[in-house]
Amino acid sequence: MRLRNIPGAEQALREYPTFVDNPTEYKGRWSERFGNNNPIYIEIGCGKGRFINTLADRHPDVNFIAIELKAEVVLRAAQRTEKQTIPNLAFIQYNAALLPDLFGAEEVSRIYLNFSDPWPKSRHAKRRLTYASFLQTYKQVLKKHGEIHIKTDNENLFEFSLNQLSNERFQLRHITFDLHHSPLAEENVMTEYEERFSSRGQRIYRTEAIYQE
Amino acid sequence: MRLRNIPGAEQALREYPTFVDNPTEYKGRWSERFGNNNPIYIEIGCGKGRFINTLADRHPDVNFIAIELKAEVVLRAAQRTEKQTIPNLAFIQYNAALLPDLFGAEEVSRIYLNFSDPWPKSRHAKRRLTYASFLQTYKQVLKKHGEIHIKTDNENLFEFSLNQLSNERFQLRHITFDLHHSPLAEENVMTEYEERFSSRGQRIYRTEAIYQE
Ligand SMILES: C[S@@+](CC[C@H](N)C(=O)[O-])C[C@H]1O[C@@H](n2cnc3c(N)ncnc32)[C@H](O)[C@@H]1O
Ligand SMILES: C[S@@+](CC[C@H](N)C(=O)[O-])C[C@H]1O[C@@H](n2cnc3c(N)ncnc32)[C@H](O)[C@@H]1O
Repeated sequence: MRLRNIPGAEQALREYPTFVDNPTEYKGRWSERFGNNNPIYIEIGCGKGRFINTLADRHPDVNFIAIELKAEVVLRAAQRTEKQTIPNLAFIQYNAALLPDLFGAEEVSRIYLNFSDPWPKSRHAKRRLTYASFLQTYKQVLKKHGEIHIKTDNENLFEFSLNQLSNERFQLRHITFDLHHSPLAEENVMTEYEERFSSRGQRIYRTEAIYQE
Repeated sequence: MRLRNIPGAEQALREYPTFVDNPTEYKGRWSERFGNNNPIYIEIGCGKGRFINTLADRHPDVNFIAIELKAEVVLRAAQRTEKQTIPNLAFIQYNAALLPDLFGAEEVSRIYLNFSDPWPKSRHAKRRLTYASFLQTYKQVLKKHGEIHIKTDNENLFEFSLNQLSNERFQLRHITFDLHHSPLAEENVMTEYEERFSSRGQRIYRTEAIYQE
């Protein structure tokens, strides 16, 4: 669901060339918008966008699309681009539950889920972005052998996610219980939440999941 | 390698009808020894045997085989049976690295690995019972959709094992970071090590891994 009740943020977003106002129009043809056939990596729930902005800067040969539910939050992410056009970066305000509105089959090579809301109560499990129904949605847009990369500080969400991913036949790789003290730390790009949690001494969990069929 | 240098224990073992002195002779025909075609579950590194003795008692419709490297340890496990014949339980002193000496292809339905030695140093990784080469050995005797059930108090071994298992294409199930506070606690049968570690307040990790091909 679009947050139609924040007209200020929605209006402001239109001033950013990285913001895509009509994202469903690019379904199945994002390569046309980017003007190349580079792989597409998306982040779901990008928050204030440090992660995706850094990645877009480091990897000009990949097209990055950040999806965020809340207009005022994605505005903060877009503001990092200072109204510049960044050829390999796009921001979308959308609900990830409706991902197949945005992408055709096999259009996405990688999905990042960073510090997704943990929804700790069992009765809210269906809202977790790694709940089976979400994973099934991701499969509708992921390439064969496409990847989901997950980071979280929340141990219960991590345990839950590993089980849901295995159950949905993703192959797990680089399962890491303490990212910042692992060999993967060096190449890690921190998100805003990650910075906050790890500065409090909390451990960061991470895994990659490969789509098998 | 058999521990040929403990003649006392080896001698004493022969007095226990649950002990199988010549286990390689039963390779591919354990059902003949047990006198039925019930599934075979094995425990590798059974230690003093509380776990396997309890399981054999609870599940008369399953044949249990405990494998333990050290004669003096497997003697302790056999002693629990008090020289009785237990129709669905057998003890073997053998090195699990040589499992295909003991079992034919698809002869084993389930493997239990409880509190395996963690071998914390990286240069000893190959000795861990969930190292890729061990998992490949297990595949040589496991049925299709056969299972490996793992419990450990050691977080690093658990993380390592999940990765090795995924990498070897086992499907993971019921990954649990705190067994004793999980829904699986009720049906859990504690081992000697588990009792000791959990009484010190340490958490117990557990997973099941399903053999896919
Ligand atoms: C806890 S924040 C983490 C933000 C950022 N990834 C980080 O690590 O700093 C989770 C974000 O996910 C967004 N979000 C939650 N559900 C979403 C959905 N269904 N679709 C898109 N974004 C969603 C929230 O609005 C929020 O900004
Ligand atoms: C740490 S103890 C755990 C004992 C028991 N499972 C428990 O939880 O109380 C590990 C046991 O595995 C046995 N072991 C180690 N390597 C083995 C191998 N390659 N084959 C058979 N047993 C092995 C050791 O001798 C030891 O008794």
